[in-house]
Amino acid sequence: MESSFNSRLLDRAVGELSKLPGVGKKTALRLALHLLRRDSGEARSLGEAIIEMREGITYCEKCHNISEEPVCPICSDFHRDRKIVCVVENVKDVITIEATHAHRGLYHVLGGLISPLDGIGPSELEIESLVERVKEEEIEEVILALSPTIEGDTTNFYIFRKLSSLPVNVTVLARGLSVGNELEYADELTLGKSIQNRIPFS
Amino acid sequence: MESSFNSRLLDRAVGELSKLPGVGKKTALRLALHLLRRDSGEARSLGEAIIEMREGITYCEKCHNISEEPVCPICSDFHRDRKIVCVVENVKDVITIEATHAHRGLYHVLGGLISPLDGIGPSELEIESLVERVKEEEIEEVILALSPTIEGDTTNFYIFRKLSSLPVNVTVLARGLSVGNELEYADELTLGKSIQNRIPFS
Repeated sequence: MESSFNSRLLDRAVGELSKLPGVGKKTALRLALHLLRRDSGEARSLGEAIIEMREGITYCEKCHNISEEPVCPICSDFHRDRKIVCVVENVKDVITIEATHAHRGLYHVLGGLISPLDGIGPSELEIESLVERVKEEEIEEVILALSPTIEGDTTNFYIFRKLSSLPVNVTVLARGLSVGNELEYADELTLGKSIQNRIPFS
Repeated sequence: MESSFNSRLLDRAVGELSKLPGVGKKTALRLALHLLRRDSGEARSLGEAIIEMREGITYCEKCHNISEEPVCPICSDFHRDRKIVCVVENVKDVITIEATHAHRGLYHVLGGLISPLDGIGPSELEIESLVERVKEEEIEEVILALSPTIEGDTTNFYIFRKLSSLPVNVTVLARGLSVGNELEYADELTLGKSIQNRIPFS
C-alpha cells in the first residue's frame, strides 16, 4: 500500500486533521508539517489537550452547558441571580453572552433550535427540562436569547406557549440584533444592549 | 483563577489549538466545540495521530526529507533514478513534486533558503551535505527546484558555485507560462523569460 506522503503517520495525522470543520487536505498538511517542525512537546500538549478535553468535559445536568462536574460552575455559583434563566441555542452562545457581562443569572442550553426542515422537533431539544426547571425552581424570568431567525422565532414561540400557564415572565432579546444574522456574530455592545433592553414576549 | 470558558480543559484545548498557524482564538473555540459534539473516539484519534506523528517521524539521514526510518522510502527505493537529485526548500515541496510524477530521481531537502534578512545563511541549510552527496554518490544531475524568488535565486547561485568544481550537471526548473493560464495574465518577467527560454515545437 503506497502512502500519499511516504509516511503512514503523516497520512493519518493529515486525515484526522482534515476531519475538522473548515480544514481541507491542504490546510491539514500545512498544520501537520508545522507540528513536525516544532518541538515534540508542543505536539504532545496539543494532542493531550484535545483528548483530555473531550474525556473530561461532560454536560451540566441542570443547564446542559459544558461542565467538568455534574453541575457546572455557573449553576453552582450562588452569587448569580438564580431567579433569571437565559435560554440559548448552544454552548457557544453561553460563552458569547458571558463575554458581555450583561447577564448575571443562570442559563439553559437547548442544544439546537426547532427546525422541521432539518428534522429537529421540540423533543430533540432540552425544552421539557426547561419547563421542569421553571416548575421546580424559583425562576421569575426566562430570557429567550435565541438567534433572530425563523428557527429562533419558532422556538421562542413554542417555549412561550409551553411556559404560558406558569407564573414566570418570558422575555426576549431586544431586536437590536440585525435580523437574519447568527447570534454568535453580533458584537458585544449590541448583544449587551439587547440583553438590557429585553422586552416581554408577546 | 477564573477561566474564560468556565472550563479549564476547554481553555487549555483552545489555547493549544490557537498556537497552530492561521488558527485564531475564535477558530480554535469553534474546533474545540466541534470536537466536544463528536464521538469521544474522534477526539482521541486526532490527539493520538498528532502525538504519534510527531514522535514517530524523524528526518532521513541522506536527503533530510521526513521519514519513519533512518533512511526514507524514496532514498531506499532502488527503482528510482539515483543519478538525479532534486534540491528543494522543504518537505512540502517533495510532496508537491512527487504529485506531478515528473521526477523519478532522489531529493535533497535544504530546510530553507538563504535569506540574510531573516538571518539564514548557508550553514543553517543542508548545503554542505548536498556537496558531500555529490562527491560520494554517483550523481550526474542536480536539479535546483527552488522558488523563483530572490531567496531562491540567491540559494541557486550559491549551490551552483559550490558544485561548479565537481563533475555534475546543475539544472534549474524552467520558468515560463503557467499551463492553462491566459497569456495576457502572465507577468512581464515570466513572459520575458519564457521568450528567452523558448524551445523547439514538438
